[in-house]
Amino acid sequence: MTGTVGFIGLGTMGCDMARNLLKAGYRVRGHDLRADAARAMAAEGVVPAASVAEAAAGADIVVTMLPDTPHVQAVVLGEGGLLSSPPAGRLVVDMSTIAPTAVREMHARLKAAGIGFVDAPVSGGPQGARAGTLSIMAGGDAEDFARARPVLAAMGTTINHVGESGAGQTVKLCNQLICGINLQAVCEAIALGRAAGVDLAQMREVLLGGSAASWMLDRLGPAMIESQTAAGFRIDLMLKDLRLVRELADALSVPLPGTALVTTQYVEARAHGEGGNGNQALFKVYDRMTNQAAA
Amino acid sequence: MTGTVGFIGLGTMGCDMARNLLKAGYRVRGHDLRADAARAMAAEGVVPAASVAEAAAGADIVVTMLPDTPHVQAVVLGEGGLLSSPPAGRLVVDMSTIAPTAVREMHARLKAAGIGFVDAPVSGGPQGARAGTLSIMAGGDAEDFARARPVLAAMGTTINHVGESGAGQTVKLCNQLICGINLQAVCEAIALGRAAGVDLAQMREVLLGGSAASWMLDRLGPAMIESQTAAGFRIDLMLKDLRLVRELADALSVPLPGTALVTTQYVEARAHGEGGNGNQALFKVYDRMTNQAAA
Amino acid sequence: MTGTVGFIGLGTMGCDMARNLLKAGYRVRGHDLRADAARAMAAEGVVPAASVAEAAAGADIVVTMLPDTPHVQAVVLGEGGLLSSPPAGRLVVDMSTIAPTAVREMHARLKAAGIGFVDAPVSGGPQGARAGTLSIMAGGDAEDFARARPVLAAMGTTINHVGESGAGQTVKLCNQLICGINLQAVCEAIALGRAAGVDLAQMREVLLGGSAASWMLDRLGPAMIESQTAAGFRIDLMLKDLRLVRELADALSVPLPGTALVTTQYVEARAHGEGGNGNQALFKVYDRMTNQAAA
Amino acid sequence: MTGTVGFIGLGTMGCDMARNLLKAGYRVRGHDLRADAARAMAAEGVVPAASVAEAAAGADIVVTMLPDTPHVQAVVLGEGGLLSSPPAGRLVVDMSTIAPTAVREMHARLKAAGIGFVDAPVSGGPQGARAGTLSIMAGGDAEDFARARPVLAAMGTTINHVGESGAGQTVKLCNQLICGINLQAVCEAIALGRAAGVDLAQMREVLLGGSAASWMLDRLGPAMIESQTAAGFRIDLMLKDLRLVRELADALSVPLPGTALVTTQYVEARAHGEGGNGNQALFKVYDRMTNQAAA
Repeated sequence: MTGTVGFIGLGTMGCDMARNLLKAGYRVRGHDLRADAARAMAAEGVVPAASVAEAAAGADIVVTMLPDTPHVQAVVLGEGGLLSSPPAGRLVVDMSTIAPTAVREMHARLKAAGIGFVDAPVSGGPQGARAGTLSIMAGGDAEDFARARPVLAAMGTTINHVGESGAGQTVKLCNQLICGINLQAVCEAIALGRAAGVDLAQMREVLLGGSAASWMLDRLGPAMIESQTAAGFRIDLMLKDLRLVRELADALSVPLPGTALVTTQYVEARAHGEGGNGNQALFKVYDRMTNQAAA
Repeated sequence: MTGTVGFIGLGTMGCDMARNLLKAGYRVRGHDLRADAARAMAAEGVVPAASVAEAAAGADIVVTMLPDTPHVQAVVLGEGGLLSSPPAGRLVVDMSTIAPTAVREMHARLKAAGIGFVDAPVSGGPQGARAGTLSIMAGGDAEDFARARPVLAAMGTTINHVGESGAGQTVKLCNQLICGINLQAVCEAIALGRAAGVDLAQMREVLLGGSAASWMLDRLGPAMIESQTAAGFRIDLMLKDLRLVRELADALSVPLPGTALVTTQYVEARAHGEGGNGNQALFKVYDRMTNQAAA
Repeated sequence: MTGTVGFIGLGTMGCDMARNLLKAGYRVRGHDLRADAARAMAAEGVVPAASVAEAAAGADIVVTMLPDTPHVQAVVLGEGGLLSSPPAGRLVVDMSTIAPTAVREMHARLKAAGIGFVDAPVSGGPQGARAGTLSIMAGGDAEDFARARPVLAAMGTTINHVGESGAGQTVKLCNQLICGINLQAVCEAIALGRAAGVDLAQMREVLLGGSAASWMLDRLGPAMIESQTAAGFRIDLMLKDLRLVRELADALSVPLPGTALVTTQYVEARAHGEGGNGNQALFKVYDRMTNQAAA
Repeated sequence: MTGTVGFIGLGTMGCDMARNLLKAGYRVRGHDLRADAARAMAAEGVVPAASVAEAAAGADIVVTMLPDTPHVQAVVLGEGGLLSSPPAGRLVVDMSTIAPTAVREMHARLKAAGIGFVDAPVSGGPQGARAGTLSIMAGGDAEDFARARPVLAAMGTTINHVGESGAGQTVKLCNQLICGINLQAVCEAIALGRAAGVDLAQMREVLLGGSAASWMLDRLGPAMIESQTAAGFRIDLMLKDLRLVRELADALSVPLPGTALVTTQYVEARAHGEGGNGNQALFKVYDRMTNQAAA
């Protein structure tokens, strides 16, 4: 694979995604607000760019991987941004998780300027970014998606075009709300099973064999049972995503009582300093509610 | 396999479970409060018994499969029940879903009379009962479980001894609360995705590939998306199980806000005449909340 | 006022209610499962009765004030109970808070025996019982209520006949669910105001002047703000009443999500040993959720 | 009382508030984005102003009464706004309900320019605005509040200085969250009482006499019981306020599960076209949940 990718946003996820682009044979021009982030990757082959425009200069495509909606809006629509300084290939792919309405607005403005815009949020977390096994949900025009696909394929293994502009974000947000609620379900089962005195590890095994099975029970169950809170997708990032879910639901007048309730439990986790811990730390909320010490 | 099983409770599930015992080579003495239920199975080889005692007479083991706690208590502790008229093999296996506290009380009273009692609730629903692929969670004394195991193996494929008396029911109730909450998660994702205009069938496919995956999304998702409510595990039986969850949680002072919330949605479904429909009918609650017609 | 009242149940509330009957000129024959409870009131004029039947003997009316449904059922329908040993005046008034369905069943059975039965639960708590200012919500036949009224008037100041048998309990349960939810509202406002740094005592004053006003904010607000948890209507008694609410709502298929949620917070309070404290202790749940120390 | 007030925002509330200022003897210079709004009040004595700056010109104080945070920010901080064109008296009083954080930011910027800023949101609704009986909760510097007080006294009867800048909004938001939850409590009691067949009007009377009493039960109860949804504080305005509550709570990491739940019920009401109806229309949610027709 050949070609040049401008990569904006070299955080935990972005770094590993850029590395996988390099591995796949792409030239990568990297930019981050923290100037040293791009320079730190120079030895690995990333060409540091001092600005968004510089990262875009001569690139076939620009990929953005940023914390939240305003950051992407600034990079795309702000002064010196991609709307005024697009890559030569006139294609922008945003892989952040941001508001679908903002996506559609950027898509419209870029399209009017002859620039393609694909929303392509990911799931799979830091592990998936490192391994290049992200699941990618893309929205946007078919021809733009077709052009973006090889680049996405360097970073993920499951790549789906799920609809028009914004649809990628919508599906991602649906993914996140299910994750939050499924995690709450696991919390409640463990809290009840623990109080009743059953062997939790065995219970998890048994439940995985039937109708209660879920990715959350499978992957996060062991850490919850053993009260290991550190690693994994962070509580505060989940809270950001749940805020996006709520904003979308409010805009569409969709009541989501389950999501609303579990969101308050994430807020409680953050209030206790668990924001930087993995989602499995949600179980600490149940430790407090039941007045039982964790394992 | 040889031996005689007294089988009490020939309802939807019980009939198919008795058939699988016959297939496995057991003699089955069947009893049900509806006298014709046992007679109807005579042609298949079930020996109809006019009473609990008659079903137990000469049996190695008695299996009960009944709607709720009081029915099992009546069969075990009531006049002419198994405590006074135990099977020759002095072993009772209850496969109903009932209150763990009632299980432990019956276990203690039967044990004092030299009779074993195993709680062995199942998951897998009518399909699993028919196919003999039930998942069985058993609690009770190890030697009693060991004796019950071959009989259970004629009805299910996954058979776990999860702890002392009552532990089978506890694990089953944890299974049920996860099912209810996971189903709510699927409802909320479909409601949001539908309002946002994404292709729901494709969204389900994509979500099954990542952290939002669950048995509920996999198995009940299609029926929910297509608004097919009839078949499957019934809303009103789930409500019964959620009541047992709540009673256990109350007795142990375990707050379960997610379970409490989803239970009110099941109550709403029943208020709209969905009690006899499958769990996927829970999505109709979201049809009403969002004021959107189902597919 | 003259006449004889058999009084069953001399607990915290019952003692003071019996005293108010004495003050009003009634002869009182008292009975309690704890034999010394009636004897302890002999000096005040209560005639101790060794059994329900003895308390009823020669009485115009029997009043019961007991913890829960089974206690009232035992006193009314049990061996040696009021159905077989009614007072001479053939009228029973139950002032406990119990299940409306049980009330209607007892009403029917007593009526068939020519005995009147009025359900007359109270609000106003220990203070109201002491001061004789209880608010009394009565259900039952009009003529029975008319006969009971003077006796009730000795114990309360607001006495309403709200409908047929069971209606008194229904209104009482509606009262309790509002109390629980209104208390949660006060908790959330105080938690938010505290975190935002406003003067909570002044905020309460201001809010009492407008649309947020409630008895709960008025009477329990100060104790919540100052974290005084001991006195008042007990958390565990409220939990009992919320269980009765839930059972009634389930029987009638009325989903009550707000009640369900706040009930889990009461369960949490009990899990932390607050069962014996007043309802204002519910705020401790928010202390834990917000990770803030109380005043 | 003499003096000149610039009044920005002549909507339903603003018009009546401006009229009360005129009645109290103030000269009023009125401005609204809809140019005809100010002209329509010319006959009543309002001097129409074509811009914010023109309304402020020569005024002792400017009062703003606008829909939401961005409108106030535009009027205060925007081009031609009050920061650059302050009134001669260098005092701005915002009576809208907006975000406390935005208030504090405007307060700081205006203060740096030697201009006072008081947040003074109101409760009492359109009726209170008309009658001049609003309850006003003010935050800000003491001397600014002292200067604003006579102007506020022309529009309301209860005027409290509840703390520093933003405190008025915080107290208002606490008021709103209590209102929402208390209204839910009334909904649940009416839904349960109705299903149980009690006389709802009488039940309300009885409950108002005890611990379940609230302004909501008193004032909105009758309309709810009779299913009159039109008049009163609008559902969609309440939703706006609940959004502000949530944003404040999120910023302070205060979990508010009760508020979160009732907010989803307001969203449901809006999804059914009840946004323009009064808050009592929330009961229609329970009509749907219980599958019962309203009165």
